Amino acid sequence: MKASQFFISTLKEAPADAEVVSHKLMTRAGMIKKLGAGIYSYMPMGLRVIRKVEAIVREEMNRAGAVECTMPVIQPAELWQETGRFDKMGPELLRIKDRHERSFIVQPTSEEVVTDIARQELRSYKQLPKNLYQIQTKFRDERRPRFGLMRGREFIMKDAYSFDRDMAGAKASYQVMAAAYRRIFDRFGLSYRAVAADSGAIGGDLSEEFQVIAATGEDAIVYCPSSSYAANMEKAEALAPAGPRPAPGQALVKTPTPGKSTCADVAELLGLPLQRTVKSLVLATDTLNEAGEVARTQVWLLLLRGDHDMNEVKVGKVPGLEGFRFATVAEIESHFGCKPGYLGPIGLKQPVKIVADRDVAVMADWICGANEIDFHLTGVNWGRDVAEPDLVADLRNVVAGDASPDGQGVLAIERGIEVGHVFYLGTKYSQAMNATFLDENGKPQFMEMGCYGIGITRLPAAAIEQSHDERGIVWPDAIAPFTVVICPIGMDRSAEVKAAAEALHDDLAAAGVDVLLDDRGERPGAMFADWELIGVPHRVVISDRGLKEGQLEYQHRRDTAATKVPASEVSGFVKSRLQV
Amino acid sequence: MKASQFFISTLKEAPADAEVVSHKLMTRAGMIKKLGAGIYSYMPMGLRVIRKVEAIVREEMNRAGAVECTMPVIQPAELWQETGRFDKMGPELLRIKDRHERSFIVQPTSEEVVTDIARQELRSYKQLPKNLYQIQTKFRDERRPRFGLMRGREFIMKDAYSFDRDMAGAKASYQVMAAAYRRIFDRFGLSYRAVAADSGAIGGDLSEEFQVIAATGEDAIVYCPSSSYAANMEKAEALAPAGPRPAPGQALVKTPTPGKSTCADVAELLGLPLQRTVKSLVLATDTLNEAGEVARTQVWLLLLRGDHDMNEVKVGKVPGLEGFRFATVAEIESHFGCKPGYLGPIGLKQPVKIVADRDVAVMADWICGANEIDFHLTGVNWGRDVAEPDLVADLRNVVAGDASPDGQGVLAIERGIEVGHVFYLGTKYSQAMNATFLDENGKPQFMEMGCYGIGITRLPAAAIEQSHDERGIVWPDAIAPFTVVICPIGMDRSAEVKAAAEALHDDLAAAGVDVLLDDRGERPGAMFADWELIGVPHRVVISDRGLKEGQLEYQHRRDTAATKVPASEVSGFVKSRLQV
Repeated sequence: MKASQFFISTLKEAPADAEVVSHKLMTRAGMIKKLGAGIYSYMPMGLRVIRKVEAIVREEMNRAGAVECTMPVIQPAELWQETGRFDKMGPELLRIKDRHERSFIVQPTSEEVVTDIARQELRSYKQLPKNLYQIQTKFRDERRPRFGLMRGREFIMKDAYSFDRDMAGAKASYQVMAAAYRRIFDRFGLSYRAVAADSGAIGGDLSEEFQVIAATGEDAIVYCPSSSYAANMEKAEALAPAGPRPAPGQALVKTPTPGKSTCADVAELLGLPLQRTVKSLVLATDTLNEAGEVARTQVWLLLLRGDHDMNEVKVGKVPGLEGFRFATVAEIESHFGCKPGYLGPIGLKQPVKIVADRDVAVMADWICGANEIDFHLTGVNWGRDVAEPDLVADLRNVVAGDASPDGQGVLAIERGIEVGHVFYLGTKYSQAMNATFLDENGKPQFMEMGCYGIGITRLPAAAIEQSHDERGIVWPDAIAPFTVVICPIGMDRSAEVKAAAEALHDDLAAAGVDVLLDDRGERPGAMFADWELIGVPHRVVISDRGLKEGQLEYQHRRDTAATKVPASEVSGFVKSRLQV
Repeated sequence: MKASQFFISTLKEAPADAEVVSHKLMTRAGMIKKLGAGIYSYMPMGLRVIRKVEAIVREEMNRAGAVECTMPVIQPAELWQETGRFDKMGPELLRIKDRHERSFIVQPTSEEVVTDIARQELRSYKQLPKNLYQIQTKFRDERRPRFGLMRGREFIMKDAYSFDRDMAGAKASYQVMAAAYRRIFDRFGLSYRAVAADSGAIGGDLSEEFQVIAATGEDAIVYCPSSSYAANMEKAEALAPAGPRPAPGQALVKTPTPGKSTCADVAELLGLPLQRTVKSLVLATDTLNEAGEVARTQVWLLLLRGDHDMNEVKVGKVPGLEGFRFATVAEIESHFGCKPGYLGPIGLKQPVKIVADRDVAVMADWICGANEIDFHLTGVNWGRDVAEPDLVADLRNVVAGDASPDGQGVLAIERGIEVGHVFYLGTKYSQAMNATFLDENGKPQFMEMGCYGIGITRLPAAAIEQSHDERGIVWPDAIAPFTVVICPIGMDRSAEVKAAAEALHDDLAAAGVDVLLDDRGERPGAMFADWELIGVPHRVVISDRGLKEGQLEYQHRRDTAATKVPASEVSGFVKSRLQV
């Protein structure tokens, strides 16, 4: 490919609305072009990256036995009403009325359509297992689209769906996909981690996210450097501290803490470590009657160590706390006789259920609010000052240094960008849509399902967040828009430079290398800056002087200086540097 | 590929709503699956065909120097308002409001977005010419979607757009595309014709349709078997008859024709050829005032020979008839003093403009309505009985046997399905959207554009309309879902059959042949019926008896009987039969 036959458009300045580096660099490198909020054209330079991502995903999906199809972008609302998602999904689901005022949606994913296909096409156990996938345009009407392709509204996703006879089959299908995902992410040439994720209402452990490691990532990834343990923050378990609760050592004392309504302020005032404080969070759960009205409300007090953060997913799994909400100020005042900021478990006006985090449950001589404005209690002890908690549970986010749940060391935390997810669905959709097959005994059974996504257009953005420098993008070979760029200097003046550049181009192209010859006639500085911005990993500079000396310059995008290579050996040298 | 790893689903019966053979066969062969009116999932078998069509189109577009990008499916309304198409396009344009009540559309095509890209990116004459294309999902909310993929609402289209400095450049870009289209359609292996088409308001001759020839096609294609002339019916010119108008030979006679309101009925009653009759069509054109109200209405009488059909495109090009409408019954009665069915140019109540078709202009002794219920006039002659027409023009569709406009013979008519269109746009969009570049003198100039479409998902349907028989589809090699199918008989019982089938499969696959081994264990009759329905062009049958005799059976989908081929030569034999 020659640059003059391609579409190259670089910018010196990033757009004003670009907050993250991938958005800035993809725009500056001419890879994407904004059409509206969260809606981008994939320009030729960017589309080459996307197509390479697609090709790797497609190859590995096919290798894993999945079969490609394409489901419609515009889907009738009926199927979405069948599963209830038409109402549940809220404004993120883009809704349309056609000319006949019939309701449609733009697919954000395709569980309904694929389950509809399966219930019509897969009628016998003999046809199972099957895995259908598509690489197709999706739309989610994000409330606040931003970060370029990282959180766009229109995007390309690979979504696969497996159908099995039973849970054992579904788990096997899940493992086949998880293995394919590892091959896919290995091939991308990125640093990534597969982390256990919460599987929500489905239960079981069959949910993993594939996170591209990047300091700018929006997700916290928990892992154990001395074992294979890895999970996302929602999922990572905080073990109970080793050893028993110490005996009380202090008397209960009511201490004035005027204006100090946070644990940090109280600890500072008292000159004590934050770890000695306990924070009080008040939640509520409503029981509805048959008419859907609130029949009864239970108020809950959650106690966490002052330096710990509540984990909403874990809290939602505490028996009785499913579907919790935060209590209103009125509810808090009626139960605690005090406004938030000075709350605690002692001296309640009305009974509440108390749930202590595992760490709090083994604390002695702790500090909490006195249920009185401007006062806290110190030297609080379980059993002596306050009844043992109704429940003890893991309620918090882990922190670096916590013990790894697998007992193999301590946890570390890094940041990542989720670009893939494998998920065991069970019979959630097959039951909602009555997708059954006939088993060996001729009896209808619900299909066991799994779903598996990869954010095709998000992946390049994540790759850039991981791999860039002050000059621009640094692509791994596998998904670079071009693998090699040839930069001839003074090609229009020197027949030798032109001939050498074209010979090298043709030689590499004939060997199947994705090479671009920059024949635009730009000056060297501008030309190099363009290709460093665009991030092509391998560059060869051909100049008259170099040819006279019999030396050409090779430089990897990560190299700080060029390597001189004998002109006659440059093609072989470049090939030896490619990541196969 | 083995059948057990793929998704094969054939039906004995076509769906009730399938009216055309391609819709029936694609559904029965498991290639498409209806999700809603005009909305289909592309099932694995069908997607393979679509991907092959895409690959050929992409290769030839790239070869022709076009550069691939992807524009959004969901597009903000603003750009469409800039060109006025948001209002003009009517309900065919699918409209959406997002969560913030902003207006969007689902792209039916992308002139606006690509012109928006061009006006931002192509600023200098040095960057021109450029041609950007995409292969992307489109949506047109057809009032009455039907015929499966032939007239769907959601479909895949390849749309390309060229940008040039001037008309000469635009014409050159057009010709490059037209040549690429010929290569593309040649490679599809289908019988097709490139026909001149009307270029509407743009003018000029740079508009060609690529029509796949099929008896069931909805378009009439006009061509000259003894020359290269080809045009669609809208465009094909009807020349004026050779020779002068004969002198009057009959007297004008008013003849009772009770209840005979059509030319055919009148000709039959009078025992005269239909070609002697003249039909009267009454049109009207409205002149609007500044407030957009009708200020003045002109009524027109068009005269065509009784056996000829009016061509609305040609009529719309008659000076003064741009934007015509058919007259109301009230307008007809006030000008002719008679209801439709007995109209003619003699004895008008109010003056009308008379436009005679070229054929009518040279007729003598003709028959027309008397402007009196149940009466016609015979022996009508121009000049003597009625003033010479205000205008003479080509108003009609050509018929087979008409002289070819290139003077090389007579015209023939066949039917076709439009699957491609190349079109010179001029500055229609660049003016509407102010898309300019700076010329050599630094002066802004409007870009000259062309647009070029191929119906990617329509093409397979058109191919089937052209190529099928009572057993199913007959694909050309280039776009068949599989090129070769190996049908082993009793593979589960015979290790020899299994080994031979797998060896042949592996040998062909290693040679790059797109081969499928049917390992489903179906009985021979059902297996053959499936593959004849699906339309795989080359089939090899491997049986125990055949292996014992050292003979395998090869059959092309068009062959009426199998050919015995020595087992040791079958791979080479099959390869020799493939269309390269």
